[in-house]
Amino acid sequence: MAISKGPQAFPRSEYLRRTAAVKAQMAHLDVDALFVTHPANVAWLTGCIVRHSSPQGVVVSMHKDEPTFLVRRADSAAAIHQGFLERENLVVYPENRSGNPNADGWNAVIAHLKESGLATRGLALEMHHLNAETAETLRQSLPEARIVDSEKAVVWARLIKSDLEVATMRESAAIADAAMKRATEVIRPDVHEADVVAEILAAQARGANGKSGTGIPPVGPIFMCSSPRTGVAHIQWSDDTIRKGSQINLEVTGVRHGYVTVVMRTFSLGAPSDRLRRVHEGEVAGLEAALATIRPGATCSDVAGAFYRAAEKHGVKKDTRCGYAIGLDWMEPSANFNESDKIVLKPNMTFHLMLGNWIDDDFGYVNGQTIRVSETGVEVLTKTPPHLFVI
Amino acid sequence: MAISKGPQAFPRSEYLRRTAAVKAQMAHLDVDALFVTHPANVAWLTGCIVRHSSPQGVVVSMHKDEPTFLVRRADSAAAIHQGFLERENLVVYPENRSGNPNADGWNAVIAHLKESGLATRGLALEMHHLNAETAETLRQSLPEARIVDSEKAVVWARLIKSDLEVATMRESAAIADAAMKRATEVIRPDVHEADVVAEILAAQARGANGKSGTGIPPVGPIFMCSSPRTGVAHIQWSDDTIRKGSQINLEVTGVRHGYVTVVMRTFSLGAPSDRLRRVHEGEVAGLEAALATIRPGATCSDVAGAFYRAAEKHGVKKDTRCGYAIGLDWMEPSANFNESDKIVLKPNMTFHLMLGNWIDDDFGYVNGQTIRVSETGVEVLTKTPPHLFVI
Repeated sequence: MAISKGPQAFPRSEYLRRTAAVKAQMAHLDVDALFVTHPANVAWLTGCIVRHSSPQGVVVSMHKDEPTFLVRRADSAAAIHQGFLERENLVVYPENRSGNPNADGWNAVIAHLKESGLATRGLALEMHHLNAETAETLRQSLPEARIVDSEKAVVWARLIKSDLEVATMRESAAIADAAMKRATEVIRPDVHEADVVAEILAAQARGANGKSGTGIPPVGPIFMCSSPRTGVAHIQWSDDTIRKGSQINLEVTGVRHGYVTVVMRTFSLGAPSDRLRRVHEGEVAGLEAALATIRPGATCSDVAGAFYRAAEKHGVKKDTRCGYAIGLDWMEPSANFNESDKIVLKPNMTFHLMLGNWIDDDFGYVNGQTIRVSETGVEVLTKTPPHLFVI
Repeated sequence: MAISKGPQAFPRSEYLRRTAAVKAQMAHLDVDALFVTHPANVAWLTGCIVRHSSPQGVVVSMHKDEPTFLVRRADSAAAIHQGFLERENLVVYPENRSGNPNADGWNAVIAHLKESGLATRGLALEMHHLNAETAETLRQSLPEARIVDSEKAVVWARLIKSDLEVATMRESAAIADAAMKRATEVIRPDVHEADVVAEILAAQARGANGKSGTGIPPVGPIFMCSSPRTGVAHIQWSDDTIRKGSQINLEVTGVRHGYVTVVMRTFSLGAPSDRLRRVHEGEVAGLEAALATIRPGATCSDVAGAFYRAAEKHGVKKDTRCGYAIGLDWMEPSANFNESDKIVLKPNMTFHLMLGNWIDDDFGYVNGQTIRVSETGVEVLTKTPPHLFVI
């Protein structure tokens, strides 16, 4: 009747470190409890990367070492199997609350907070994620709680990775490289985009170095924007057939234990236009300048500025940011390589150095690497050379 | 400089029908404007199935035929190319609002509502989706608006599909069947789960009958829960190797123009246990009873009751609902095959008749089809026979 713990991606000590880091943020917020609902935050705190469609979340209490995971019954065994939590720290709510308008999983959360004595204290909610209806329900059901915004406490706690997380991201990056390598082998004229995507998806699952890919990011595993769609960022792929003379902007992920890494590269089917070649040269100059700038003590703004100045010397302007924090989610909404972002880089921050540049409605270019801030500079996690691939 | 309109999944008349259906719901809410943010609702109203990470949404005004689509610049060309909207109904906000804490895409929404004279009228927001922080920002920035909940107006408008949508779902169902067929060919002892998944993902992209799969659902394209994980619903897959004697619960999707269909089947590697065989017999009896009940005029409750009673005659109890509305999203949060759901079935409602049954922590079973309520009864869109696959 009981499911066993499965192989754990990380030891228990890693999860206790994470909970402690969140509690340090909670102390600044002066709250006794934090209710976490963002899926990547839930996964980071529990080790459970199960996809869910029903209300679920984690309560971090200042008075307990482990978080409490509130989950529907049909996913509860997964929480035991994948997660680090002791069974006593699981609150399982019954299945008759799925699709039930009168009593859903949030009622279980409310009951837990009341039973734990947390309903009359300071309570932080993830207002950047929790939907407005549920936030209002919680407010009305917990009238004695002093409810505040979490100020993305868990997201900020995730910004500096542990060495264990970095090791996992190296495995993930090798998978992204393998997927991009497969793309270079199968992107050919007269092939359907869907057939190319089939090979890339398969490579992403098979993984690299004996480590399989173990998941698909919520936003999707791939973006393939081919002519005339190179001016857009986020089309997954199209019904079209690849043609001689086309350009393909390809963004592929690796995923390992939920950790996402990304590689973007541009393909030219036949000789690239002068314009494409000039943009590529400017972007590579920008990439090199950014990599030369990344080190502990530099700011996100410094990195962005280095890219923009180097690229502009080649006449290349880019209006999107140059990157963002990445980890147990494709995009962590914390640090950004923007000129306005003054966050100081520290060792083991990880970023997607995202050099996609959507210049006109019908012309864009992509390139970029996933990187780690090292003790002295930068470690480029993805190893695919930053070439313009001419097929 | 201008991107052309791509091949459209549906004609303009289909989108105008959708907008009109939403306006009928808005009349009940007594509002002049509805601000739509749920990605599937945005896609349904615009035809644009691009994945996005930045604030974007659609404003439906009672005073306009077409909705207005507010989108970041890097995705705006995709809105033109994939979507049906005229360019004048696109409001494009600049890229320097991505990752900017002081002025993001919501500011563009607020400005648009003010400029359109909609800021002093009744305004509905999707409180079941919109995050609490943004809802509060909108409230504070639009003090003269009478803000109400949308009561899932767009979700309810999506419940009855058009014939065009049904045709697309038939294409999608053929892809789900092809993916499940591929699974029956590659699930073998001593094969890595990831290698099986690689083949299934490839089949999902390649599609069926010359129609490629064109997307990955946000919740993922596949759930493969193998021994000892058959008691859980939503693990994507694991690092394990398939073994003789194992059981695999497999749930695979087809996707066509964003329309999702699902097939679930159980695999036994070797002779199934008596328990598994008994559960299978009860579930198939329940499936047949449910299919015999589905017709216009019956209620969701009738269908659920027919399943539960037939299965219970075989000693099989199931505590999860028997299905949910499906379409331009894996799960449409409207009608459910629950005994408490009194919604009356009408032609062209589509459901995932979801017979997954997670009985113990370490034992479950899955089966099910994607169906359409026809004019006289039921059309089973997925054609994979409801067998227990013994390998």
